[in-house]
Amino acid sequence: MKNEKRGRPRSEGELLELVSSLLPKPSSEVLTGIGDDCAVIRPMRGNNLQLLKTDALVEGIHFALGTPPERIGWKALCRPLSDIAAMGGSPLHATITVAAPTAWTVAIWKGLYRGIGSAAREFSVSVVGGETVRSPGPAFLSVSLTGTIPKNRLKLRSGAKPGDLICVTGKLGGSLKSGRHLSFHPRLAEGQWLGNRKEVSAMMDLSDGLGSDLPKLAAESGCSFLIDPDSLPRHRGCTATEALSDGEDYELLLTVSPKEWPFLMKSWDTCFPHTLLTCIGRMTGEDLTPTPLPSGYDHLRPTKS
Amino acid sequence: MKNEKRGRPRSEGELLELVSSLLPKPSSEVLTGIGDDCAVIRPMRGNNLQLLKTDALVEGIHFALGTPPERIGWKALCRPLSDIAAMGGSPLHATITVAAPTAWTVAIWKGLYRGIGSAAREFSVSVVGGETVRSPGPAFLSVSLTGTIPKNRLKLRSGAKPGDLICVTGKLGGSLKSGRHLSFHPRLAEGQWLGNRKEVSAMMDLSDGLGSDLPKLAAESGCSFLIDPDSLPRHRGCTATEALSDGEDYELLLTVSPKEWPFLMKSWDTCFPHTLLTCIGRMTGEDLTPTPLPSGYDHLRPTKS
Repeated sequence: MKNEKRGRPRSEGELLELVSSLLPKPSSEVLTGIGDDCAVIRPMRGNNLQLLKTDALVEGIHFALGTPPERIGWKALCRPLSDIAAMGGSPLHATITVAAPTAWTVAIWKGLYRGIGSAAREFSVSVVGGETVRSPGPAFLSVSLTGTIPKNRLKLRSGAKPGDLICVTGKLGGSLKSGRHLSFHPRLAEGQWLGNRKEVSAMMDLSDGLGSDLPKLAAESGCSFLIDPDSLPRHRGCTATEALSDGEDYELLLTVSPKEWPFLMKSWDTCFPHTLLTCIGRMTGEDLTPTPLPSGYDHLRPTKS
Repeated sequence: MKNEKRGRPRSEGELLELVSSLLPKPSSEVLTGIGDDCAVIRPMRGNNLQLLKTDALVEGIHFALGTPPERIGWKALCRPLSDIAAMGGSPLHATITVAAPTAWTVAIWKGLYRGIGSAAREFSVSVVGGETVRSPGPAFLSVSLTGTIPKNRLKLRSGAKPGDLICVTGKLGGSLKSGRHLSFHPRLAEGQWLGNRKEVSAMMDLSDGLGSDLPKLAAESGCSFLIDPDSLPRHRGCTATEALSDGEDYELLLTVSPKEWPFLMKSWDTCFPHTLLTCIGRMTGEDLTPTPLPSGYDHLRPTKS
């Protein structure tokens, strides 16, 4: 394609060819990928559960105009991967819809699918279908993922019990300020490892901010919680409030049986020596008032502006 | 909720509750639906293939501002259902993403999910997850569907052979003009019935218009084609050109072994007495020039305006 910096794709067919060339080859269970009415997948052996997740990025909300397209593509696939990680699962197949302003050049499309392709390769995802449509407004991306998990490793939000310790992986806060929300690595290996530990009673990923996400986990588990904001593992330069409410951390929030915590911690340090696992509080009975927290992001809450 | 004509949902939580109340109860294999990081599905018994499809609606492209929200919801789910029908399959689980202008009232949300709920009930789909986000521009809906099909019933676009007859279900043309694109019924029963017939060699659904879709089927099958535009089953008041290029018919396009055509036709008339099945031409060797056709809709082809 000549002059890709300014040229636009001339048809859906041309774009499909370009996009396919930038994605990894689908794995062998994909009988029909991009190109027919639906993707066709050979069923998995064994008795694993199926995971389904969909997640969207909107220009002006999840990324700013002018963001390098590689990073938009990376983030689009990595966000739902973080949800698969939070169940303890492994990703399998993705379908991707892009509604693009007509001004998008071939260079932008290439960058976007280079980013998607990098994430797909790194986390072993087969992109099996999708759609490109015209947007009369901002760009919009929607990624749907399937995943798989052995029955006995599934971690839900609802499994926490009063007395369980509350823990987080990595550090929190400042994701938007630092640009980390565009380049984070979903905690898939860590999630699978934690899914395999019986002492982990509940798990979810931190996308809206701990202040918003922890109350959701507590509500699903019928518990309340106490946390010590000073104990939060923070990124450099972040206050406790920022660690609680900035959002887009894509770390894992989990609860652990207190008896087993020392063993889990030791084992974690051996397997993931470069990633923190920090205890920040504990679950309590539903009747206790939870620690008051600044809430994170809610798409529909009216803003002051 | 008081004053729903003007009131807006106050939070994602409130909206989630509203939406869930308008959808049918998920079927028994759905272990965790809306509310956790991912939906969790018990695997199917047997050795069926899995189908995956994603499809999007953009305000101003697929529906006009002011379209009744029930109809938008109906169309959003029925479009990818038409793709499942085109493989001969049965739908299972849907995840739905809605990016909505902040001005959307509770009444609009209710209408939208009433439409989605009606289609989900009618075609036995479990809505197991999704997302609602804010759109700074037009409304945007993305629906992802899983489906299932016994191995020996799968119909691809690539199975047509020279000499096979080309057929379409129903009538073509005028879908946008008549509003039929907002209220059509995907041909699921017909697709499953045709999937079960060995003499059907290839199948796809007509969404961009026969003039655009037939060349795709021919290319996938390594064939060319001859059709008689005068033989096209047309909706009242439509010209042959409109039947070829209007698009959004959501009928099935299929190829049939000529020897078996009389038996298929007879059997069809017994099972679907109110729906036409019309032979419109035949597949030929790749070396023959195909019948010249006006092309249908391409999202990325530059327009004259």
